[in-house]
Amino acid sequence: MNPSAPVVALAGGVGGAKLAVGLAEALPPGALTVIVNTADDLTLHGLHISPDLDTVMYNLAGLSDPAQGWGIKGDTTGALDLLGRYGGPTWFRLGDKDMATHIRRTQRLSEGARLTEATAELCGALGVRSRVLPMTDSPVATRVQTPEGELEFQDYFVARGTRPRVTGVRFQGAETAKATPEAAEAIDSAGTIVYCPSNPIVSLGPILAIGEIEERLRRPEIPRIGVSPIIGGSALRGPAADMMKSLGHEVSALGVAEILRDYIDGFVFDDEDAPLLPAFGERGIAARTAPSVMTDTPSKKRLAIEVLGFAEEIRNQAPAG
Amino acid sequence: MNPSAPVVALAGGVGGAKLAVGLAEALPPGALTVIVNTADDLTLHGLHISPDLDTVMYNLAGLSDPAQGWGIKGDTTGALDLLGRYGGPTWFRLGDKDMATHIRRTQRLSEGARLTEATAELCGALGVRSRVLPMTDSPVATRVQTPEGELEFQDYFVARGTRPRVTGVRFQGAETAKATPEAAEAIDSAGTIVYCPSNPIVSLGPILAIGEIEERLRRPEIPRIGVSPIIGGSALRGPAADMMKSLGHEVSALGVAEILRDYIDGFVFDDEDAPLLPAFGERGIAARTAPSVMTDTPSKKRLAIEVLGFAEEIRNQAPAG
Repeated sequence: MNPSAPVVALAGGVGGAKLAVGLAEALPPGALTVIVNTADDLTLHGLHISPDLDTVMYNLAGLSDPAQGWGIKGDTTGALDLLGRYGGPTWFRLGDKDMATHIRRTQRLSEGARLTEATAELCGALGVRSRVLPMTDSPVATRVQTPEGELEFQDYFVARGTRPRVTGVRFQGAETAKATPEAAEAIDSAGTIVYCPSNPIVSLGPILAIGEIEERLRRPEIPRIGVSPIIGGSALRGPAADMMKSLGHEVSALGVAEILRDYIDGFVFDDEDAPLLPAFGERGIAARTAPSVMTDTPSKKRLAIEVLGFAEEIRNQAPAG
Repeated sequence: MNPSAPVVALAGGVGGAKLAVGLAEALPPGALTVIVNTADDLTLHGLHISPDLDTVMYNLAGLSDPAQGWGIKGDTTGALDLLGRYGGPTWFRLGDKDMATHIRRTQRLSEGARLTEATAELCGALGVRSRVLPMTDSPVATRVQTPEGELEFQDYFVARGTRPRVTGVRFQGAETAKATPEAAEAIDSAGTIVYCPSNPIVSLGPILAIGEIEERLRRPEIPRIGVSPIIGGSALRGPAADMMKSLGHEVSALGVAEILRDYIDGFVFDDEDAPLLPAFGERGIAARTAPSVMTDTPSKKRLAIEVLGFAEEIRNQAPAG
């Protein structure tokens, strides 16, 4: 792959982090920038928690708990146990090592660092060689409308286990959120853009809801590839399928591609869904299937190579000039 | 002991906490209030840490690490290890459970709670039945003058292992610090006051440096008993002996009693130092010896009973009216 053509990947949590690992493996060191959803961020115990940033960071650092995909492998919960005894909430599981990340981030933010800067410091300390950027340093918060009322995202996602039916989603603060210089520069200089297999509504949606980011992502002169988090009509994890259905989207790779349609030149989905290929053709979306279940580093890298190869094909097909 | 005559104990860290445990064992539930030095408090990792309050609290809750006297038994250090990797200081050892205390305290203070209130909440959650009060809610910081310059207390005490020679001590903020309503009320209604075997200079010294506390402690109508942290010319732990020596005090139970002289009616020290009894007599300080090494709960309770019994003797000797 060409190190002079950097890759920007947009990601949410676990699924996005897996492909980010694959891309980092497939690309030369430093060629990957991951722009990560922060609309799931929350404050608990007085600490600033950025679940998706941390999941991407821990995965890229090789520290992630392989079973659950988030958190740090082998972590203990002494602090959370005692915080619970003190009356603090324990529904959001925070390990002790993980707590250090939130403590340090909170400290640096209180000292005036931007989230982008704090994230760069944390990633640097953990030896992450790809660049991890929050989608914005501005506060943006996903609110989920349900029959039980409007919920904070983590209340819906973790505390209520994604059980409430989602009737709408909004991204509070997105309308005034700013692109950071770092994210703007990364997108402007990208040679390829990858939409990771993250929830298109609540992981990629918030990134696209920021006007200054969304405008920059409209770069038809470079290949932009989406990857489906939906396989065989369901999501490997998380509420993407139920959420797409209740919001009126087709629960399939095609449904995801339709949501991202204005931003992509090609779409990759699982071999299992190969029967959808003609429908992609009818709707004029360049598509390709591949094994997309990422269970280990080789399978993450293999999918990344498929995605990057598809991008190169699209780049080479484009009319010169 | 008479529950209508509450006991106020003044304490620093480990030594004071041990006698506090003994007093709590010897007295009826709720009869003990411990007023604790906070001039050692520090901010690390953006968290408010109150080492002496925590040592007293953990000891009274039965959670304390019996080997080191501070911290929580069986605690892990996952958070501190990663904080170190993030570039944070690790010389002040913070366990994971212990971290929860600092996180919760910091959160409550940032929400506007007073340190007194936050401490009461923490103690309540841990089932502590005695009342634990910070000496003040105002910021007071012990500064230690040494040939290397003026040091923050924990820099001197932990980071430099009490090695620098102490040429002076000051309590920054003490001159303007306020007595809390809780501490004022506790002292005003005390039937007995006990000066725990804590460092008289940097543990009891800061409490006495607060004018509004010091004035209230001058209550000659009730028995006030001091207990020596110096046995046979040295301190069981900590820098009390070296510090007393370099500041020109006699390094003995008598030296401690002289420092506290204006505030005590009687003084208890170790049987080993019984040869000092005549000197106490010459100086007009009522004194008594007892086994004062506290290694377990029975020995803590035994010393507490000696102290309280001595107080009753003094009370009964006082002229009526």
